[in-house]
Amino acid sequence: MCQGFKFSGVAAGLKKNGQKDLGLIYSETPANVAGVFTRNQIKAAPVLLDMQRITAGICRAVIVNSGNANCCTGAKGMQDAISMAHWTAANLNIPEEQVLVASTGVIGEPLDVEKVRRALPELINTLDVDGISVLAEAIMTTDTVPKVVTQKGRLGDAFFTVTGVAKGAGMIRPDMATLLCFVVTDVAAEPELLKEMLATAADRTLNRITVDGDTSTNDTALLIASGLSGVVIGGDAARKEFQGILDAVLMSLARKLIRDGEGATKLVEIAVKGARSDADAYQIADTVAHSNLVKTALFGEDANWGRILAAAGRAGVPIQSETMDIYFADVLMVKSGMGCGKKAEARATQILKQAEYTITIDLKGGTGASSVITCDFSIDYVKINADYRS
Amino acid sequence: MCQGFKFSGVAAGLKKNGQKDLGLIYSETPANVAGVFTRNQIKAAPVLLDMQRITAGICRAVIVNSGNANCCTGAKGMQDAISMAHWTAANLNIPEEQVLVASTGVIGEPLDVEKVRRALPELINTLDVDGISVLAEAIMTTDTVPKVVTQKGRLGDAFFTVTGVAKGAGMIRPDMATLLCFVVTDVAAEPELLKEMLATAADRTLNRITVDGDTSTNDTALLIASGLSGVVIGGDAARKEFQGILDAVLMSLARKLIRDGEGATKLVEIAVKGARSDADAYQIADTVAHSNLVKTALFGEDANWGRILAAAGRAGVPIQSETMDIYFADVLMVKSGMGCGKKAEARATQILKQAEYTITIDLKGGTGASSVITCDFSIDYVKINADYRS
Repeated sequence: MCQGFKFSGVAAGLKKNGQKDLGLIYSETPANVAGVFTRNQIKAAPVLLDMQRITAGICRAVIVNSGNANCCTGAKGMQDAISMAHWTAANLNIPEEQVLVASTGVIGEPLDVEKVRRALPELINTLDVDGISVLAEAIMTTDTVPKVVTQKGRLGDAFFTVTGVAKGAGMIRPDMATLLCFVVTDVAAEPELLKEMLATAADRTLNRITVDGDTSTNDTALLIASGLSGVVIGGDAARKEFQGILDAVLMSLARKLIRDGEGATKLVEIAVKGARSDADAYQIADTVAHSNLVKTALFGEDANWGRILAAAGRAGVPIQSETMDIYFADVLMVKSGMGCGKKAEARATQILKQAEYTITIDLKGGTGASSVITCDFSIDYVKINADYRS
Repeated sequence: MCQGFKFSGVAAGLKKNGQKDLGLIYSETPANVAGVFTRNQIKAAPVLLDMQRITAGICRAVIVNSGNANCCTGAKGMQDAISMAHWTAANLNIPEEQVLVASTGVIGEPLDVEKVRRALPELINTLDVDGISVLAEAIMTTDTVPKVVTQKGRLGDAFFTVTGVAKGAGMIRPDMATLLCFVVTDVAAEPELLKEMLATAADRTLNRITVDGDTSTNDTALLIASGLSGVVIGGDAARKEFQGILDAVLMSLARKLIRDGEGATKLVEIAVKGARSDADAYQIADTVAHSNLVKTALFGEDANWGRILAAAGRAGVPIQSETMDIYFADVLMVKSGMGCGKKAEARATQILKQAEYTITIDLKGGTGASSVITCDFSIDYVKINADYRS
């Protein structure tokens, strides 16, 4: 349990199917907060609102809806985001500017904010220290499972907790500020430090995953620290310990997001090493991880390594197939740019039947390394996204 | 009929399904030639061979196989490509270095070149001035229809012909040198001029299409000019006339490639105008044309314009949704970044049922314009590519 926080979720009627679609995070005391936001040029109203409010560094509550992104909704959209915060503050009797807002769902449709207003009393009445999985459910869109991760850390004799919740499952690509992800912790830390550690963790985890290469207009990751554990994050040892726990929580959430990627049946890490630089390695890993031909072959459990080479070859980085090795887990499938034959392929095909595995591309041309986590590209991905709004 | 050329195609047994898989273009006289090739860092053996040989500017024959890309096949692969040219030259009694080679199909499997050798006599015996559609069939992979375009041009009282043949249908993305595309003409023109005009035409047509964003290792476009019409392409007027015809032939082939894109049910032009520059406009058109979420919505005939805005917003170009209009054909669907309501959506949904239409994004921020032609992303795309090698 993360000291100082309560959570809840209800069905406000924003989702057509009647499922939970409104969630609340409440901090019993004024907590420090930091956030990272989408780098998409088109930003939803709640993102623009949060980017202003978060500069003060204090948060008492986060109100989140699914079923509607409140994006491309004009002046009314911004007024709706402000109203959500205003009503939440009024019902909780806290300062309005300490309420942050997040939305996820269809872009471009006006938000029926009256439904939020009507649902708020119940949302507040059901706040619970153990309510985080209900919150996780309320922020889901095409996700099939709620995603919550908790990990405990220790500094000397004192313990602290980091609890994160996130939603996926489409319009996800790496190197952007992420998706919806809320992390609460009971450590004490200045907002600037929280920001630095959150950005570092996101860059190592949430920014290294992709489902479909599309970046959301609503990506928001918040880190909220109540300080109630008494653990103060200041010196190097404390920072290192907290960063490690935060990284682990976000990486665990990131992997959950990919496992639950739209239509996904596989989680595959594309690891590149032996590049001239980490940046080169990332560029190749990113291109392979986004290749529709690679992803459909992963779905088909087909060790079609030619597509991996072809994708690597268009990454904009000088490479030579003659020095490249490719491994499926520990099976050497390509040696110096050529296939290792039927026996290796048979072993690789067994690896491809697994739910999770790593494909390693060794360029043997340097010490640069990087990796990106992707999923396969299935018939269900197309079905889900052809019918999303209907 | 394009004077000076003969064509043929046979089943050599390279394709598992027994369909035609070996084609030949024969020029009765030494013809001038130019080519553009894939910019993928990984290049197939025949591409590497052609890039050397084409510098001499003379071509007597092109031998093409489908069913195997002869890529990532090492020293044997290069020897196999040389053998294909060698045997073709010996059977036709022409200089070996005037034979070009192209391959398309699975990457990374050794080519059974003996099958090519055995099929060559029949391939040569069936050469025919009217054989181009048989050739078009022999170079198909996942294509469902052969693709041939012929157009006549006129300079003064003299007529000339440009005939092109191409294959698609996956591993196709724009701004690269293309796919397999062979164009023959009976004009006379220097190789350098042919190169310049081919590159210009490709940049306006073949490099402005995408099926799946993946660039082939085997892309090859050749322009072969026999000179037998007596029309000489020299001065500005002649160049302009020939460029116009060449552009039209390649654009017609490009559209055929997209209509036959793997699993495609729609051809959609993404046109961007009002950008700060043509380059900005291209960047946005390219990003929207590659968005899996846009492409699945097109498949679902869903006027989900929020995905178009979201994709435009991640194109790496500064844009403001507040000034953006989006049209589906002539239906204004988004005005100044906001939806135009149910009536516009109903009209747009009718447009989306058409087999071909244009989506126009007007940024109203300048005079830059560009467009990219894409297809939708269907369940069949996934099926085709999950099972490609089996």
